[in-house]
Amino acid sequence: MLGTILHGPRDVRCEEVPEPEILLPTDAIIRLSATCICGSDLWPYRGLNDVTRPLAMGHEYCGIVEEVGNAVTSVRPGQFVVGSFCISDNTCPHCRFGFQSSCEQREFMSGAQAPLARVPLADGTLVATPELPAEDLIPSLLATSDVLGTGWYAADAARVQPGCNVVVVGDGAVGLMGVLAAKQMRAGRIIAMSRHRTRQDLALEFGATHIVSERGEAGVAEIKALTGKVGADAVLECVGTQESMAQAIQCARPGAMIGYVGVPHGVALDGQTLFFSQTGMLGGPAPVRRFLPHLIGLVLERRIEPGKVFDMRLPLADVAEGYRAMDERRAIKTLLRV
Amino acid sequence: MLGTILHGPRDVRCEEVPEPEILLPTDAIIRLSATCICGSDLWPYRGLNDVTRPLAMGHEYCGIVEEVGNAVTSVRPGQFVVGSFCISDNTCPHCRFGFQSSCEQREFMSGAQAPLARVPLADGTLVATPELPAEDLIPSLLATSDVLGTGWYAADAARVQPGCNVVVVGDGAVGLMGVLAAKQMRAGRIIAMSRHRTRQDLALEFGATHIVSERGEAGVAEIKALTGKVGADAVLECVGTQESMAQAIQCARPGAMIGYVGVPHGVALDGQTLFFSQTGMLGGPAPVRRFLPHLIGLVLERRIEPGKVFDMRLPLADVAEGYRAMDERRAIKTLLRV
Repeated sequence: MLGTILHGPRDVRCEEVPEPEILLPTDAIIRLSATCICGSDLWPYRGLNDVTRPLAMGHEYCGIVEEVGNAVTSVRPGQFVVGSFCISDNTCPHCRFGFQSSCEQREFMSGAQAPLARVPLADGTLVATPELPAEDLIPSLLATSDVLGTGWYAADAARVQPGCNVVVVGDGAVGLMGVLAAKQMRAGRIIAMSRHRTRQDLALEFGATHIVSERGEAGVAEIKALTGKVGADAVLECVGTQESMAQAIQCARPGAMIGYVGVPHGVALDGQTLFFSQTGMLGGPAPVRRFLPHLIGLVLERRIEPGKVFDMRLPLADVAEGYRAMDERRAIKTLLRV
Repeated sequence: MLGTILHGPRDVRCEEVPEPEILLPTDAIIRLSATCICGSDLWPYRGLNDVTRPLAMGHEYCGIVEEVGNAVTSVRPGQFVVGSFCISDNTCPHCRFGFQSSCEQREFMSGAQAPLARVPLADGTLVATPELPAEDLIPSLLATSDVLGTGWYAADAARVQPGCNVVVVGDGAVGLMGVLAAKQMRAGRIIAMSRHRTRQDLALEFGATHIVSERGEAGVAEIKALTGKVGADAVLECVGTQESMAQAIQCARPGAMIGYVGVPHGVALDGQTLFFSQTGMLGGPAPVRRFLPHLIGLVLERRIEPGKVFDMRLPLADVAEGYRAMDERRAIKTLLRV
């Protein structure tokens, strides 16, 4: 079959790869209904993570179960399933505390930018829908697998409450999903920091009440003006750079939580600055599995449409163009037809 | 009158100073019933904070109101009061969110290692008891002013819940108060990290269920063993060094909160380490004012006795010996009779 392999910086290819097989009795093989490119795929694509061997790319997925190992009991061939990008058993203590992304048996999904994928720990990882979903819901169901679940976790970690003032730092796909999550959690003001018109428009569509296009000191000043000089009650940090983290900290009121989900690259936090700002922080790889049943339900009931975040759709064979478009910020997020 | 002035590293003197006066109509003057030396006083004493001019020391206080400014309405001369080491108006947005230590009008108390002290923003800062308290309650009431309130905030910020496993890093007076707070919040296992016998004994008296005397990797291994390999649900970081913060992070389970109240000195946090450990953090100068009414009530009802943390009592004239004893760890905390 065709699969997506990253060979080095900016060298991603759709090429012939072996079909996945059941390796362990807890595995499932799924035939993907659609897959996509993640903002985090751009880190190795840009050479910011070392690529020491060819990498099978892709960790966002939904589709039809093709085959299951002997030990799998909760899903069966023919069912439509969504899974998290974090593989988890959903039974260990960390899973039971709702932090499946730190499961004792955690693995990170890979190889899902392909027509078929192997999902380890299928019982713990996959959530089946009651019936096969309508075709037009596929993009939104795919979004729950990572990008929506991650934006949702940012809002959850930031403890968004009804009526509170929220700032979202980062207008990438995760930030936009953070806006959607804050809206679902009935936040009051939802302020999206964005300087790109198409992303601003999408943020407004997902529920942002205000757009701040300034950054740095000027951006902080606007946030303060929009929050009665107080600062935000909850901040979603969806980038992962030193600048974005500093922006998040400066926008937060004392006692606010920052939910940070952008994988930090070169971020160092000064203890005394954090201390005197009284900013709370909780982040990490999102425990998407915790939220999946709820998010899938919202999609199936057509109460949210996170699939709108895909502003480019390509056949899998054109995956390299998908990476280029996201790298050059011509696309927010690329869905791949398989 | 006599007051305590720090002139430079390890040069603290009890010397003649002017009596405090009402400077603003919102001030009160109180006659202290007792005062004490704080662990944080040791930072400038040890030369770790620059001392560029003589500093009037002391920020923990309780006593009888002597005089109030024209604008003060909530306390009157003759009442017994306790106040936070953070001066706050208790009406600004940050105060209303319970973060009085970031009050828009925040000042840090000073000059309280003396018989009389000026308290700015008396209405917002001071809490009066219903009647004059019994003499033997004075040490415990004094403790609520900072050391207990700070340990309490650490437990609150770490979100200690009934039945949860708590680790307290640091066996200074604040750490011991953190143990007391976790006990009051009905934590399950309360694990005090301490290698000093007298502090271990006091921790057990305040409610610790386990003592871990190892540090570093060995300490983490013991914590893991005591928590079913999971790590602690809540960690109180009560020191403020790079080592203690690393210890706290390594003892926490994914999703746990660290409440950190030791003023960080030279602490740098790596974003990616924090991210992948999924450790939550909230710290800062404790908003003691939020907790004061509750803590004063617990003392007056004799349900807690935080005053036991004072294992040395000296007349004010011997304040220098009090600093020396704490610096050399001969004393946990020194109460000064005024």
